[in-house]
Amino acid sequence: MAVNLPLPIAANLKPVAGIELGFAEAGIRKANRKDLLVMKLAPTATVSGVFTKNRFCAAPVQVCKAHLEGVRLSGTPIQALVVNTGNANAGTGEAGLANANATCEALAALLGCAPSQILPFSTGVILEPLPVDRLKAGLPNAIANLNADNWYNAAEAIMTTDTQPKAASRTVTIAGKSVTLTGISKGAGMIKPNMATMLGYLAMDAKVVQPVLDHMVKAAADKSFNCITIDGDTSTNDSFMVIATGAGQLEVNDTTSPEYAELAAAVTSISQELAQMIVRDGEGATKFMTITVEEGRSVEECRQIAYSIGHSPLVKTAFYASDPNLGRILAAIGYAGIDDLDVSKLNLYLDDVWVAKNGGRNPEYKEEDGQRVMKQSEITIRVKLARGDAAATIWTCDFSHDYVSINADYRS
Amino acid sequence: MAVNLPLPIAANLKPVAGIELGFAEAGIRKANRKDLLVMKLAPTATVSGVFTKNRFCAAPVQVCKAHLEGVRLSGTPIQALVVNTGNANAGTGEAGLANANATCEALAALLGCAPSQILPFSTGVILEPLPVDRLKAGLPNAIANLNADNWYNAAEAIMTTDTQPKAASRTVTIAGKSVTLTGISKGAGMIKPNMATMLGYLAMDAKVVQPVLDHMVKAAADKSFNCITIDGDTSTNDSFMVIATGAGQLEVNDTTSPEYAELAAAVTSISQELAQMIVRDGEGATKFMTITVEEGRSVEECRQIAYSIGHSPLVKTAFYASDPNLGRILAAIGYAGIDDLDVSKLNLYLDDVWVAKNGGRNPEYKEEDGQRVMKQSEITIRVKLARGDAAATIWTCDFSHDYVSINADYRS
Repeated sequence: MAVNLPLPIAANLKPVAGIELGFAEAGIRKANRKDLLVMKLAPTATVSGVFTKNRFCAAPVQVCKAHLEGVRLSGTPIQALVVNTGNANAGTGEAGLANANATCEALAALLGCAPSQILPFSTGVILEPLPVDRLKAGLPNAIANLNADNWYNAAEAIMTTDTQPKAASRTVTIAGKSVTLTGISKGAGMIKPNMATMLGYLAMDAKVVQPVLDHMVKAAADKSFNCITIDGDTSTNDSFMVIATGAGQLEVNDTTSPEYAELAAAVTSISQELAQMIVRDGEGATKFMTITVEEGRSVEECRQIAYSIGHSPLVKTAFYASDPNLGRILAAIGYAGIDDLDVSKLNLYLDDVWVAKNGGRNPEYKEEDGQRVMKQSEITIRVKLARGDAAATIWTCDFSHDYVSINADYRS
Repeated sequence: MAVNLPLPIAANLKPVAGIELGFAEAGIRKANRKDLLVMKLAPTATVSGVFTKNRFCAAPVQVCKAHLEGVRLSGTPIQALVVNTGNANAGTGEAGLANANATCEALAALLGCAPSQILPFSTGVILEPLPVDRLKAGLPNAIANLNADNWYNAAEAIMTTDTQPKAASRTVTIAGKSVTLTGISKGAGMIKPNMATMLGYLAMDAKVVQPVLDHMVKAAADKSFNCITIDGDTSTNDSFMVIATGAGQLEVNDTTSPEYAELAAAVTSISQELAQMIVRDGEGATKFMTITVEEGRSVEECRQIAYSIGHSPLVKTAFYASDPNLGRILAAIGYAGIDDLDVSKLNLYLDDVWVAKNGGRNPEYKEEDGQRVMKQSEITIRVKLARGDAAATIWTCDFSHDYVSINADYRS
């Protein structure tokens, strides 16, 4: 029951020169489903990413960070990424680290590179040992079908409780040169600021030097994957990776060029699309909500209030019920932790409907107007703080019976 | 479907000398239900309380704070408390303040005291005008049945989505003198640290001077009403009030006396009982969970981790399903915001079952042992951080289909 989320059409997902994708059914947790993905990169590729800030970050996340640090020190490029679903390899201690390293070693042996040139990713159940033998046994099958046209299969291979694959693709022209960008993502619970059990992979055929790519990825994440929330849980495995294969025409070598600005805008835009897809397919979601907080003193306080609204189970259940019980939004603003907030100046809008004026109910507000907006599948909540000119936007979904069902039954 | 919450027996709720309670069906929101409560105090009484920290604190909360400040400045005692359900009088701006003041004026006129000697409380829907005329019309009826024996009726009169009235009573002997304590509370959503749409009233017949009572109330709240969470929402109206009527034998004049320590312990203990009742009757609750975090560097960090676990919808739905998907607890610990937490030393227990050892799955842990504990209606989650000797405990409940149903339908 995803909210206005079109199924990707395989033919519309453009191959990106310099990256091939292969998948397998390795039986990590369940039989007969794609659960293993290998992405093989051209030697010209640079890779950068952002990871969960969870202290219980998973073994593969720790290995990824170490290998990316190795790239920065040695310049030896990443050759492949490998993703398994069905098991998060998190909360698994030393054995988990050994399994993540064993995965890299196995794939490196097959590809003829060093284990440090592999980035491993896992998503699924926490606190259970990774069945690394089944994973390793699946690698040759994944390599056997490596193909630049496999983006749709790749999107399917990284799904967990997602109801459908998520992918986006576009071609832009920058300084007269064509750049193709294609990405995939998966959710769908444990989604919140600072990443989630959220995996996102975006490849483009531009050539981007490492420090410039690092800068671009962080900026894009802050305006996309770090602006979504489903249930306020931050997972142990969240990762968003951008790959610049260097196989295309455009080169970007510094952050001050016009080419940088245009490419960064394209990366941010497609990242937002991939991130919003995760919200649209949030566990049990029936509504897609945009929460914008304006006229704040800082972006930080605007985000804090937006997340306070977006995390409130009472707000989310009211939206599920299409019940304009909008005082719950005021309550969530009030406990967002902005100690000097003067609520008597605050205004609240639901789409075009002015609900609260100067901290109280707008005398012109009519319940039927609120009701009309609440029944829509896409709703914007806008809060004006009247204390500055900073603003922030996040995206979230409502909280339904199905969220409880899905999470109460996840492992069964 | 409250969790192990016995219905109070009216005969067991001891009257407290110096306080009378009267109730009415004022039709604030719905007809034919008790929705108005007046508590009339002896002139010897002192009153102290703690209130919500929500910036959108309701009009009656603002009036209460002003009137209590007036008591401290003038010494003129509080004469009565008045509580309505069905409407929170929050997010109502200047008109809401006028209505809260009008409530005080009406009751003061009937009792022959100053409006500043009245404390008003409201709970119910936010952002709707208080029907103050119906409230005022109900006051004479409430006064007509003022009686020291009305505690059970009072507990009923303050209910909103509570499934049953909550009350506790006991008599203690301190320094050879008898003290009777009787209290009532209501929840049941929007419950979280720093108070909730939670109202608690505790009366005792001891005589306690104002600054000593202030101290006692704050200490009791920090170990009771500020240690519970249901959905992480902090309401606009939460209040916990302690009334020392002064009509009994015991006098407490300073915080260093042995009498203070004994009385404070009794007040904290009955406050914990009243607060835990709110969790046991949490919206849709099927399990009562005690979360204890030990071996921390500070009480604050232990509370932070305990709340991170207690607020996680993923943890709460797993408990609802009796599914020992305990990695979700590790994830919640990891994103609690303790940046220097060394998870490789962390241990996790579910009652007597040692689940995670040194940050990974305990090799001795068997899923059936976790399963056995998860099926209980009362469960203790214990986390050992191995970095200090501070500890904290909170109480919470699970997250069920009924939570969504109740909150999606609250106003209908």
